[in-house]
Amino acid sequence: MAQPKYLTGDKAGIEEFLSRFDVFLFDCDGVLWSGDHIYDKVPETIEMLRSKGKQLVFVTNNSTKSRADYKKKFDKLGIPAEVDEVFGSSYSAAVYIARILKLPAPKNKVFVLGESGIEQELDAEGVQYVGGTDPAYRRDIEPEDFTNIANGKLLDPDVGVVLAGLDFHVNYLKMAIAFQYLQRGAIYLATNTDSTLPMAHGFFPGAGSAGAGVEKAIGRAPLSLGKPSQAMMDAIEGKFHFDRKRTCMVGDRLNTDIQFGIDGKLGGTLAVLTGVSKKQDFLTEGAPTVPTTYMDSIGDLMG
Amino acid sequence: MAQPKYLTGDKAGIEEFLSRFDVFLFDCDGVLWSGDHIYDKVPETIEMLRSKGKQLVFVTNNSTKSRADYKKKFDKLGIPAEVDEVFGSSYSAAVYIARILKLPAPKNKVFVLGESGIEQELDAEGVQYVGGTDPAYRRDIEPEDFTNIANGKLLDPDVGVVLAGLDFHVNYLKMAIAFQYLQRGAIYLATNTDSTLPMAHGFFPGAGSAGAGVEKAIGRAPLSLGKPSQAMMDAIEGKFHFDRKRTCMVGDRLNTDIQFGIDGKLGGTLAVLTGVSKKQDFLTEGAPTVPTTYMDSIGDLMG
Repeated sequence: MAQPKYLTGDKAGIEEFLSRFDVFLFDCDGVLWSGDHIYDKVPETIEMLRSKGKQLVFVTNNSTKSRADYKKKFDKLGIPAEVDEVFGSSYSAAVYIARILKLPAPKNKVFVLGESGIEQELDAEGVQYVGGTDPAYRRDIEPEDFTNIANGKLLDPDVGVVLAGLDFHVNYLKMAIAFQYLQRGAIYLATNTDSTLPMAHGFFPGAGSAGAGVEKAIGRAPLSLGKPSQAMMDAIEGKFHFDRKRTCMVGDRLNTDIQFGIDGKLGGTLAVLTGVSKKQDFLTEGAPTVPTTYMDSIGDLMG
Repeated sequence: MAQPKYLTGDKAGIEEFLSRFDVFLFDCDGVLWSGDHIYDKVPETIEMLRSKGKQLVFVTNNSTKSRADYKKKFDKLGIPAEVDEVFGSSYSAAVYIARILKLPAPKNKVFVLGESGIEQELDAEGVQYVGGTDPAYRRDIEPEDFTNIANGKLLDPDVGVVLAGLDFHVNYLKMAIAFQYLQRGAIYLATNTDSTLPMAHGFFPGAGSAGAGVEKAIGRAPLSLGKPSQAMMDAIEGKFHFDRKRTCMVGDRLNTDIQFGIDGKLGGTLAVLTGVSKKQDFLTEGAPTVPTTYMDSIGDLMG
C-alpha cells in the first residue's frame, strides 16, 4: 500500500488534489465539528469548494437526526448546506426500505428501535412503522407481556422489517418484541452499527451497542445501511449519480469513513486528524486501512 | 467420542449409573420444571436420590432469583430442597467477588446491571453495590447526563467491578454508566451470558443479550460466573468439596449444562430431553457436545 500524501501546507499538492475530484463526501462529526464546536475555517473551506463547482454530500451515521435536523445544525454553526446535500444513515435506511426492498403490502411495516430521526425519514419515504418514539413501548416489561409477545398478541401482524438505530430509550420490552419479530422472519436492518458514540469529550454506547442485545439474542447481524456498508454507498450513488473515480471521501475514522471510501472504489480518500483516528493508525507498517491523503484539519484545504 | 447411553427403561443401566455417583449437579429449568409446570415424578426422584445418600446441588444460571427466591419456587412446586443446596449464578458471582477477587477497600463496590436476586446475594456476602434496582437508575438519559457521566460526576468513585446479569430494566443510562466504569478500569463480570431466556413457551433476551450493549461498547467479554464457565464449577467445588469423578451433571442444554460437566471433568453427564436440546443434537456424527448418558425425562430415574 502506497504511503498517504500529507497535504497540510503543500499548496501545489492541494491544487492537484482538488483538480482530481468533482464530488466530496464529507463525514461531519470529527471533520467539520465536535459537538457544538466548529473547527477552524470550515465555512470558508466549504464555500471555496462550492466556488470551484464541487458537489458536496454530507454523509453521517448519526441515526437520531433526520436530514432536516442536520440542516438546523449546519445553520446554527454557520456552515452553508442544503437538506438535499445531507445523507444520514436514517435516510439511507428509509431509501433502502422504500426503493430497494419494496416489500409488498400489507406485510411491509417497520418496527423501529430508535429516535425521531428515523421516523421522520421513514415518513418522508412513505414507509409505515410502529415502535420508535411511541410511548406505548417506553415502559417496563410486565409479567403478562411475556405471554402476549410469545403468542403474538402484542405484535403488529404487518411488520416485515426490524430497523435498529441509536435508541436512547432502549428497554427490555422493545428488545423482546424486536427479537420476536425476527424469530417470525422479519428482515433485520440497522441504520449503522458503530459501537461507540463520541459525546461530551467521552465515549457512549453507539447504535451498534444499543442494538447489540437483539443481535445477540437472534444470533445474526443486521444489514447495516450506514458507513462502511456499501449499501449506503449504493444509496448515495443512486441519488447523486456521481463518477466514483472523481469522488473523494473525507473523514476522521479509518474503520468507517476511510474504509467506506476504499470499499466503494472511490478515486481517493482524505483523512483529517481532528477526530478519532490518529496518523500513527495509518502510517504504521501493516495498518489495515490507509487513506490516499491526509491533513491536520479540513481548514488546511484553504492553503 | 463414545455414543451416550440411553437409560430410559433400562433398570440395570440406571442402577449401575446411580452407583457411580455420590453427587448430582442439577440444572432446574427444563429438567425439573418448565415455568410453573413440574415434570412427572420429580419430587419422588429427588427423594429417591436423597434416600440413597446422594448429595444434590441445584445449579442455575437464572440471575434474577436469589437462593432464597429459588427455595420458595421449590416449596411451591413441592420439591424438597434446602437453600444451601441451591447454587445460582448470582450467588456464584457474589462468592467470586467476596472470596476470590477480594478487592481492597475502598475501591471494591459493584455496579450492578440486574435485578434483586443479585442484590440479595451480594448483601449475603457483605459486598457493597450501587445500581441494580435503585430507582435513580431506572430513568431516561437526559442531555446533562452525558457530561456528568463523562466527567465522572454521576459515578461512584469506589466502584471497582461491573457485574452484568439479566436486567429486565436495562436502559441507555445504565449502559452508559457501566461503559464509563469499564473505560476507567473496572473489572468486568457477568452472572452468566445466555443469549436467550425460555419463557411463556417462547424465547426472550437472556442475560447475555441484556448485557450485550455494554460488551459491544467496551469491545471485550465479561468473565462469566455461570454455566458453562468453570469459574462457577470452581465456586461450587469450593463450597461442597466433592470428588469430580463421583459427580454427575444433569441438564437439558448441551452448550451450557452438559458442556459445563465435560469441561469440569466430571465423572459423567446426563442429558434429559424435556428442555431445549433434542437427542439429534448429540446423536449426530460430529456433534460438538455429547453427554455420557441421556433419558427422556428425569422421572425415568425411578425406573
